[in-house]
Parts: sequence; C-alpha cells; structure tokens
Amino acid sequence: MGSEDKLLKWICRFTAITAFFLIGFIIGWFARPSTVNHGHVSKSFLHDFLDEMQAENIKHHLRKFTRLPHLAGTQQNLDLAEQIRAEWMEFGLDSVELVPYDVLLSYPNQTNPNYISIVDHLGNEIFNTSLAEPVPEGYEDVTDIVPPYSAFSAKGQPEDELVYVNYGRTEDFFKLQRELGINCSGKIVIARYGKIFRGNKVKNAMLAGAKGIVLFSDPADYCADGVEPYPDGWNLPGGGAQRGNVLNLNGAGDPLTPGYPAKEYTYRSGLEDAVGLPKIPVHPIGYHDAVHLLHKVRMNVHTNHQVTRIYNVIGWIRGAVEPDRYVILGGHRDAWVFGGIDPVSGAAVVHESVRAAGKLIKKGWRPRRSLIFASWDAEEFGLLGSTEWAEDHARVLQQRAVAYINADSAIEGMYTLRVDCTPSLHTLVYDITKKVSSPEEGEEGMSLYQSWHKRDNSTERDAPRISKLGSGSDFEAYFIRLGIASGRARYTKNRKTERYSSYPVYHSVYETYEIVERFYDPSFRRLEAVARVRGGLIFSLADSLVLPLDCVEYALSLTKYANSIHQLALKHPAALQKYSVSFDSLFSAVENFTVAAGDFHQRLDQLDTSNALAVRMVNDQLMYLERAFIDPLGLPERPFYRHIIFAPSSHNKYAGESFPGIYDALFDIENAVDQQKAWDEVKRQISIAAFTVNTAAETLKPAGN
Amino acid sequence: MGSEDKLLKWICRFTAITAFFLIGFIIGWFARPSTVNHGHVSKSFLHDFLDEMQAENIKHHLRKFTRLPHLAGTQQNLDLAEQIRAEWMEFGLDSVELVPYDVLLSYPNQTNPNYISIVDHLGNEIFNTSLAEPVPEGYEDVTDIVPPYSAFSAKGQPEDELVYVNYGRTEDFFKLQRELGINCSGKIVIARYGKIFRGNKVKNAMLAGAKGIVLFSDPADYCADGVEPYPDGWNLPGGGAQRGNVLNLNGAGDPLTPGYPAKEYTYRSGLEDAVGLPKIPVHPIGYHDAVHLLHKVRMNVHTNHQVTRIYNVIGWIRGAVEPDRYVILGGHRDAWVFGGIDPVSGAAVVHESVRAAGKLIKKGWRPRRSLIFASWDAEEFGLLGSTEWAEDHARVLQQRAVAYINADSAIEGMYTLRVDCTPSLHTLVYDITKKVSSPEEGEEGMSLYQSWHKRDNSTERDAPRISKLGSGSDFEAYFIRLGIASGRARYTKNRKTERYSSYPVYHSVYETYEIVERFYDPSFRRLEAVARVRGGLIFSLADSLVLPLDCVEYALSLTKYANSIHQLALKHPAALQKYSVSFDSLFSAVENFTVAAGDFHQRLDQLDTSNALAVRMVNDQLMYLERAFIDPLGLPERPFYRHIIFAPSSHNKYAGESFPGIYDALFDIENAVDQQKAWDEVKRQISIAAFTVNTAAETLKPAGN
Repeated sequence: MGSEDKLLKWICRFTAITAFFLIGFIIGWFARPSTVNHGHVSKSFLHDFLDEMQAENIKHHLRKFTRLPHLAGTQQNLDLAEQIRAEWMEFGLDSVELVPYDVLLSYPNQTNPNYISIVDHLGNEIFNTSLAEPVPEGYEDVTDIVPPYSAFSAKGQPEDELVYVNYGRTEDFFKLQRELGINCSGKIVIARYGKIFRGNKVKNAMLAGAKGIVLFSDPADYCADGVEPYPDGWNLPGGGAQRGNVLNLNGAGDPLTPGYPAKEYTYRSGLEDAVGLPKIPVHPIGYHDAVHLLHKVRMNVHTNHQVTRIYNVIGWIRGAVEPDRYVILGGHRDAWVFGGIDPVSGAAVVHESVRAAGKLIKKGWRPRRSLIFASWDAEEFGLLGSTEWAEDHARVLQQRAVAYINADSAIEGMYTLRVDCTPSLHTLVYDITKKVSSPEEGEEGMSLYQSWHKRDNSTERDAPRISKLGSGSDFEAYFIRLGIASGRARYTKNRKTERYSSYPVYHSVYETYEIVERFYDPSFRRLEAVARVRGGLIFSLADSLVLPLDCVEYALSLTKYANSIHQLALKHPAALQKYSVSFDSLFSAVENFTVAAGDFHQRLDQLDTSNALAVRMVNDQLMYLERAFIDPLGLPERPFYRHIIFAPSSHNKYAGESFPGIYDALFDIENAVDQQKAWDEVKRQISIAAFTVNTAAETLKPAGN
Repeated sequence: MGSEDKLLKWICRFTAITAFFLIGFIIGWFARPSTVNHGHVSKSFLHDFLDEMQAENIKHHLRKFTRLPHLAGTQQNLDLAEQIRAEWMEFGLDSVELVPYDVLLSYPNQTNPNYISIVDHLGNEIFNTSLAEPVPEGYEDVTDIVPPYSAFSAKGQPEDELVYVNYGRTEDFFKLQRELGINCSGKIVIARYGKIFRGNKVKNAMLAGAKGIVLFSDPADYCADGVEPYPDGWNLPGGGAQRGNVLNLNGAGDPLTPGYPAKEYTYRSGLEDAVGLPKIPVHPIGYHDAVHLLHKVRMNVHTNHQVTRIYNVIGWIRGAVEPDRYVILGGHRDAWVFGGIDPVSGAAVVHESVRAAGKLIKKGWRPRRSLIFASWDAEEFGLLGSTEWAEDHARVLQQRAVAYINADSAIEGMYTLRVDCTPSLHTLVYDITKKVSSPEEGEEGMSLYQSWHKRDNSTERDAPRISKLGSGSDFEAYFIRLGIASGRARYTKNRKTERYSSYPVYHSVYETYEIVERFYDPSFRRLEAVARVRGGLIFSLADSLVLPLDCVEYALSLTKYANSIHQLALKHPAALQKYSVSFDSLFSAVENFTVAAGDFHQRLDQLDTSNALAVRMVNDQLMYLERAFIDPLGLPERPFYRHIIFAPSSHNKYAGESFPGIYDALFDIENAVDQQKAWDEVKRQISIAAFTVNTAAETLKPAGN
C-alpha cells in the first residue's frame, strides 16, 4: 500500500469519524429538550378531557346535590361542602380545603313570620299573603325550606296605600314622578319582578322616599306561553315566589368588612355603617297573592341579620411548568332551597370537570399552569363567598391569575348557548365550541358552534353572539374588581321569542332535580355541552403554551364601545359644543390600542416558542392586559367597581355597561341642576377612559422601551 | 482474511463509530446553552462599573449643571433637560426621551413682590423684609434667580399681631393651646424652620385658625457652631432664606389631576378642588429680617398659580434576558436656584452612573434586566415630575418594576453615609458598601462599610444604621403608592453632634458649586462613594440572576415595628382592656410572615439556577413582596399613601412612620371626644395591618398551593 493510499484511507477514516461525530453532535443538540415543556401533547388530552365529561355523570351529580335544601350558613350546606371536598380529593386533585368566612347573612325570624296583609279601616288584617309556597310532590317531608323572603330587608311593619311602580326601574320612577305626578314618598310601593336586579328596585324605591316595597312575580314575566305551572310544566305556580337578596353592595362583599376578608380576627363595622343594606322593609309574594293587593296594606317583616360562618371549597391541581399561574373555575354551591337549576345545574358541571381532570391526572397528565376549582358559598346573599376569597387572596390573584370562568346555573332555557365574556376570550370561545357537538336532537354531526351560530347570530359579524359580562354572579370580584379575564357560558332560551324574565321558577321551591330532568334537559346533553365549553376553556387556558387570549378582539370591542358612548353623547349637540366636550382623546386612545394590539399579534407570530422566558414574557403581557383596565380609584361612588371598560349598570346590576363612568355621567344629564358641573364630570370621565385605554395599550408594547 | 477477522474489524469499526457518535452527542448536548443566560460574568462587570465612576467626572458634571438657575417650568430647566438627553444618548443608552406634563406650579408675581412689613398704628409700613437674598460672589450677573417664597401660598395681605409657634409642630400647637392658653385663631403666626416639613407647619397653622404664617430660619437651626456664614464657611448668611413648597399633597402629585398623569388631554379640576393648596398666605424670611418681627405685621403675598409644562428625561438600557423587569435610578433636576447641593450633587452622580453604564455597554455588557435612568422635573413643587410619571406608567410599573433607587442630593454633611431603604434592601446595601472604599482621609484600605459602621452603628445590631424611608423626595410614589422596593443613600452629618436642621444653606441662593468644592467634598471622593453605592445597588438589582432582595430582613423589621406600635398602645392599659383591643392578630401575622420568609430563604438555597422559569418564579415572588403591602383602599384620608407598613408621618412628611394606620389611630387618642369610636378605629387598623402582613406572607409560599 503506497503512502498516498494510506493517506487516502486516513482521510476517509477521518472524514467518516468526523461525519459520525457531527451526526452525533447534531442529534445530541436537538435531542436535548429545551426548557419549554412540550412533553405532553395537549391537543389529544383536550379531546380526552372533553370526552370524559358525560351527561349521565352530570345527571347523577345533580340528583345527589339537590335532595336537600342547602341554604348558605346552614348545616346542610356545610355537609355538602364536606361531601364535595371528599369527592374532589377522591377524583384526584392535589389538595382540597374548606375556607370559612364569617359574613353577615339574613334569615326570616323562625317564630315571627313575614307576610303582607290587607288592613281595613279599623286596622284589622282582612287578608294575609301566604307564609310559604306549596311544597312540590316528593319533597313533603323535607324540613328547613326557607319561606320566600327578601334577604337583608329592614325589619318593620309599615302600613299605607300601595303604589304600583311597574318594574321599579329608574325609568318607571321617572315616569311616575315626571309624567304622572305620582309621589311615592311615604308610601308603600309594589313592583313586579323582572327586567332588572331586585336590589336596584329597592334602591329606587328608597330614593323615591317609599317606606316599604313589595315585590311580586307577574305571570306576564314568570309564565311562558302554552306552558303549564310546575309540576306539569316549567312555569311558576301561583303560590310560588322569588327569594333573593335586596342589597346594593356594588362589589363590596360582606357588608360589615368591605375591602377585607371576613376572617375571625377581622374588624367588623356596626350595622349602621354596613354597606348596601336597605333601610326599608321588603317582601316578595307570588301572583296568587298579588292580585289581592290593591288596597291599603301592612307589611310584616321580621327578618334578622346574623353574622354566620360560610364555607368555600377550594381544590387545586398544581401546574407542571408554571405553578404560579392560576386558572379558576368557580361557581356557587348554596341555594335558596334545592337549587335544581340555580346553582346545582352549574355545580354538577363543575363536579364533572373535576372528575374528568382527576381522571387525566391519574393517567399522568398535568396542566402547564395551576387549576383552581371553587365551590362558593353565600352567592345568594350578595356573592359573599367568592368576594371574600377574592379579597383574601387579592395580592396573589393580581399577580398570578390568568382567567376566571364562572359556573353558576348551566341552563336557563332549552334553545341554545349563551356566552358573556371579556373580549379577549371571544376567539377561544369560538374555538372550543367548534370542538363540542351540538346537544340538540336532529343535529348529529353538527358542532355546538354551528348550532349556536344558526340560532343566535351576532349583530356585528357572521359569528354567534357573545355579550358583555354584567354581574349577579361570582365572577364579579374577579373581573370588575381585580381585572382578571373572565367568562361564563350556559344554555339559554330564545331571546327573540321568549319574553319572560330569567326562567319562571327562579329562586322558588320548584327549582328541583325533576324540573331539569323532565323539562329542561331530559338527556342531560345540554348540560354536557355546557360542561365541555366551561371545561374546554379552563383546559386551554391552563395548558396552552401561549395563552389563548386575543388582544385584537379587545381592540374591536373598544372601538365599538367608544362609538356607542359617543353616539349617546351626540344626543346633546348643543351642550357638547357649549361645554367643549370632545371624545377625541378617547378615539385616539382606542386607535393607539388597536395599533398596539395588531403589532403585538404580529410579534406573536415570530415568537421563539422554545425560549421559555420569551414565552413567559408574552404571556405576562396577555395575562396583565385585563389588569391594565383596573383603576385603583374605582368608579364614582363605587370603589369596588374598578374596571374602566365594564361595570354592572348602575340601574341594573345584572346588565353590563361599557365605559360605565362616562355612561353614568351622561345619564339623565338633561335634568342635572348644575349643567356646568355635570358636563365637567363627563369630561373627567372621558379623560379617565382615554388614559386607561392608552395605558392598556402601553402594556402590549415591547418591554424595555 | 477470515470471517471472524472481518467481524472483529466490523465490530471495531462499529465501536469506534459509536464512540465518536457518543462523543459528538455528549459534546453537542452540553455545548448547547441552556436558556438561562450565564453568558456574562457579572461580578467583574460590577467591579468595572464601580471603578468607572470617578470623582473628577462628578466634579465636572456638578460644575456644568450649576452655572445657571434651573427652576422647574423655566426655559433654563428645559435646556438642561435637552443637554442631559443629548449626553445620555452619547454615553450609550438605548433611548432617551423627554416626557412632558402640564402641572400646577406657583411663582412670585414678577411686578408685585412678596414681603412682610411691620406696620404702625396708622397702618404705615415702617419696616419691610428683604425682597431677595444678597447674591454670592461670581453670580452677580445671573438673572432669573427666583426670590425666596413659599410656593403655592395663597395670595393675601393679612395684618395682625404675630404669634410665635416655635417649630409649628403638632406638639407646639398643643402646648400653646392646652398649656399656655394661647389662641392662634385669626392671628398671623411665625414659625421657625426645621424639625418637620414646612407643609405640615402650614397645615397646623390652618387647623389652629391662623390667617397667615411666616417661616423663618433661626440661627439655632441653620448655623453650625464655629462655622462662618457663606462664602467663608457653609453656614446660612443672615440674608439667606429657605424657599420651598407648602403643599399637603399626601402623594397626589399635580394638585389638579390627582391619580392621573397631567397630560394635555387630562381633565383638570378647578383651583377650588385642587389637592393640598394652603388657604392662607405663607412667606419665608431670613434671620436678619426675623429679629425685627415681634410686632404687628402685614404679609404681602402675590404669588401666582400657573399650569406649566415640565419635562422628565427618561433613559433606557434594555435588559438582555428579562427586558420586562425594570430597575430605576431616579433623581430630580430642577432646583430653586443653582442647586449646588439640592439636587445637582445627586444629578451629577446619576450622570456619572449613566456614563459608566454606557461605557460598559460599549464593551459588550448588557444587564439581565432593563435599567431606567430618570431626571425628574418639579420635585421642588411637590414631587410632581416623578409622581406624574408614576401615574402615567402605573400599570407596567406595578407589573415590572423590581426596585427604585432615589438620587436626590448626594451630600448634606461631611461625616458618613446615610441610607434609608425598605428592609429587603438591607443586605444588599451592606454588601455593596463593603465593595466601596471609604472616601475619608486617613482611611485608606478601609471599606465604606467599615467607615460607616465605625461612625454610626445601628441600635439593634452590630452593623451600620439603616433607617426607614420617609418622604420629601421622588421615591414617594414608587414606594408608598406603588409598592416598589426603594432606597436612598447620601453622605450626611454626625447625627449625634450636629444639631442644625438639614444643612444650613438649604434652598437658598448659596447652594452653589463652590460650597461643595470648598467645604463639603473638596476631593469629590464622598460624592464618588455615594455614586458607587447608588450605582452598585442598581447594577446588582439589574444583573443578579436571583434578585438580591432579602425577605428575612423584612420579617425582622416587621417584628420590630409590631413591638414598637404595641408599646405605644400599652400606654393606655385601661382603654385596651375596656375596649378589648388586642394585638394578637398582628403578632400572629408577623409570626406567619417570619416563618414564610425563613422557608422561602431555605427553598432559595435549593433553587435550580439553570431552570429559567424556576428562577423567574422565585424572582417574581421577591419582586412582588413589596407590592403585597399595598392596600388599594389607602390609608384613612390619604388615598395615595397605600403602603400599610410605611408612610410619611402625618405630622412630618419627611419622617417615616411604621404601621402608620395604627399609629395615627392612636395619636392623641386620650383627647378623642368619642372614645369608643376612637378605639374602634385602632382595632380596625390593627385588623388591616394583620391582614396585610398575612397576605404578604402568602405571596412567599410555594405557588400552586
């Protein structure tokens, strides 16, 4: 072998060795996992998770949780909390705890019942309203059914002529006073339920100077056409009445500890300084009783305030990669009586989500972020359990909470899906509903999205309608006070054709398991669909590498809201000119936000998803976007409503108002005594809104200038 | 060759190939950098950075920036802002911007001067105080020296007997009213400067019903023993007087836009609703004039309020690894006249820090986190520039700011270092001062730590004294409103032997370059030492992998403060018993915090520093710890003071008070009219403090429950 050959051979060997080394190097390089955990293929787990939630199980949970009343503050509701804790642990959560608070509740006096009577000219009670609702079949032996009452009513026995105030809305009182010249001052008023939150009716009555208010369920509002009263149908029987609290808390939580959790050591104000308690007696009646009351009446209200221990159940799945990022699914457990719809149709869905998540955990899955499941107490008494927990953990929630999904009643009608959420969740809601099947008969193979789209199209685009969040359920403190992206989903009625209020048996003793099983969802596939929507939302939020929050959708909504509030102001062209009121700063801010959101979205496309810190930084911007809309100074007179884009309407807690500060400043402005001052306030609110939108835009820009 | 041989050969080849592959794989595996960037060895860069800051340069900056007056809102101060912007860009910052706000300022009327006169019984002015200070040598041709005045004084010409109120402290007025029976109502009062912030004196005078207040510099407070008046020494000449604002803003920033940045589009309240403006005339005089005023006087105050544009200069170095984490070095630029000490001794130090950082940037260094350098405007008018910028960027600062280091006057005495900071910075301050040399002659080879320790030992342990932050400088909004870990450092006098107030020429025309160069720091090594302390702090905060914040130190301080406030309460043993006031919940909370901090510290030792997300999560907990002490509801009547552990004293803005809510509730409680109500407020404040400390402890626990 010549030396050239040898050289050649060595070159070959060297080349081969180098080649193999290189191959090894390259494989070694790429084999090493980057710090970002792609270890679990989430997509298939999402599918598994959705499939795991089954109608039959939800039915079983509903049945189990509705056998007995479980009013907040009672032994039954503590028992139920303990049962849920035990089952959640069994399902496989990492930890579950009972979290107590001592809050102000309100119960009827057990020996001195509440009722309304018609009195004759001698003061004799010649007719008394019922002391209780006729108990539905099968529940005759159940004790501890609280009779219909207005929680937190003042005590009292006022006696006077009755003035009918329609729904007791702001506009109803305006009409009475301004057009009809009827003065409610010193009178007892009677309002029918519906349209707005009952607490707003009571507040309006107080503002009008009434000394008492009777609330009644009108068949026009609580009976659907062609439907029989329960048990033959799902309408409200004439003997049924709607319980409910009549507070005006404006987000304060426990009336005695506003801003702070009601712990054992917490200072409590006296009742005279409590937040939101009505100063007048309030009592609810059914329509069988209501027809009698067109005379002089006497109210007899003996309801007691009482500091009472309540219990939230809080369950955790620790996140695998970012345990310090929290996604919350929360709904209340307490019910006025059995809670067949409100809240157990929702609580059963949460229960099934926990079971399904536990199943996956046992298979080795663990979400990227932490999941928190909450069974709130005392929602019916003013969102107390959820608000106290939010107050208790405000610091960590502000820093760590990605999203809050609410799980109150999962069904209130038989027609289609209803979703209210923050704009940044729009896209995820559409994505998830495309992965869920329609529960409707005859729609096999159709997605829930398609079924929903077909039934309730948005007025703005070719997609199903999604609405703003109002209040009246447990998301309030999370969304409006803390600025955590929030949403809710449930099955609902046909908004165009079904004109009754909420659902007829709402807050009556007739909210049973049977009403769901017989009428609302015999196959339980509607509840299953709602379970999969709620579950799919929290799964995606907890497990996606990049948070599925869409700031471009927020920009679109802001544009819409800015136009809408501007339109409202344009009804006063002369004043706008006289007081130099301009919306330019707001439109300019919305434009800034739109540009920032678009740019952010573009940068997202170029994100190096293998860079754990880069992903975290982008996710922090997405997570904190909702927080940027929070103004620590709060809205005027409503320090705990701090979201500048959304707040419950000042005239109806259930409804959401966009740019609420400006809206309230414009409300009825033509009747303001000091026009200069009133329009100054409009200008101030525009300035606050513009600043807030600008500052939110800033959070979306690249960090470090 | 037999087949065995062949096989052997193949095995050999295969083994070799495999071996090389493996070698390649292993090298490839380890060659790949993990996501955590250890690329720059920070320690040596810290050394380089500290060394780069040099006395000679600081001297040069100080000389350059003190040639002309640069009062907030003037063309000179805008020119200086532009000069600083240009130089910072040249030094190598990534970006530098001028950020304007339009805030309420206050200037003397140029044609109608302010003065105090003695009037005879006919109303003739028989003596008038000086209209200006004698201008120091070398500055005779300088125009635009604003005469001594009290910024934001009300206009007016009240005339009456003069009542001497000593320092005008709360206790001085108590003594006058309660012990001496002297009524100030309707009188003009005269108070000597010193002990407390002048705004508190004015507030006290208003509360006492005075119709005007004269402030004077007493030689007892503004002349050191054995020192000549300027220019022969550093004492205040008899013709000198102390300018200064007399607001009671309580952290609101611009009086017309509390809570919001004073941008062009921002709504401004009318003067009648402005925050913190005194309702009475105020005017400052020197001691030569003061000796004449023991008669009936007339005040002549014609000062104007005026919305004026101010400019902050904001410079950025973008962080290499975590650009979304901000470390801020900020100090003001505006001065009453030349600002030789206040603020330019500080501004020159900031300038040198920027130059040194720029030098390192040019060498290829870049800090892990972003650095922000700020030259604030209108500090002298109520911390306006810094507060407006804090309001403007509150959202991103809340989410991203790691720490704020303040850079006002770097020297106020010739004795040793003085540091006020949040407890979590104690350890870092000690560490940095051990790396800096003593600037004192005869202490070659001694560290600043040793020199400081020798001169001013803590009363609690064997280490130099570090104090609480009060207010009166630009850290206020960052620390007390937003809850960003903050600190300040400067050279100071001997607290035990030098009894004069601040430094004698404070806020007079005699604060020149020469007073520093001749008396305070002829070698400029004291300023160099301060530069290295401030610079070392921001360098370490921006560049350390794990944030150098120490929560165990916070626990120690909380324990001390809890004991101290408890001791104060124990002065009322009967009331504590009668009203069932207990500090148990506070002590229990402090204990919880102490345990959580200890546990956190232990976990820190086991931190996998190669796990980028694990490091980020721990750093988030450290960063957000200070934030946890912020209560969005603020302190009673002081909505912008929101830190539950620290606030400026209600009786002296310059001093810091720990547990200020409890302290204020206890203050003078024995004289409260409604004892029940007063003690209820103490209980409420204890409850708030306990909750806040508990919630801060929660943030230190492992995330994800």
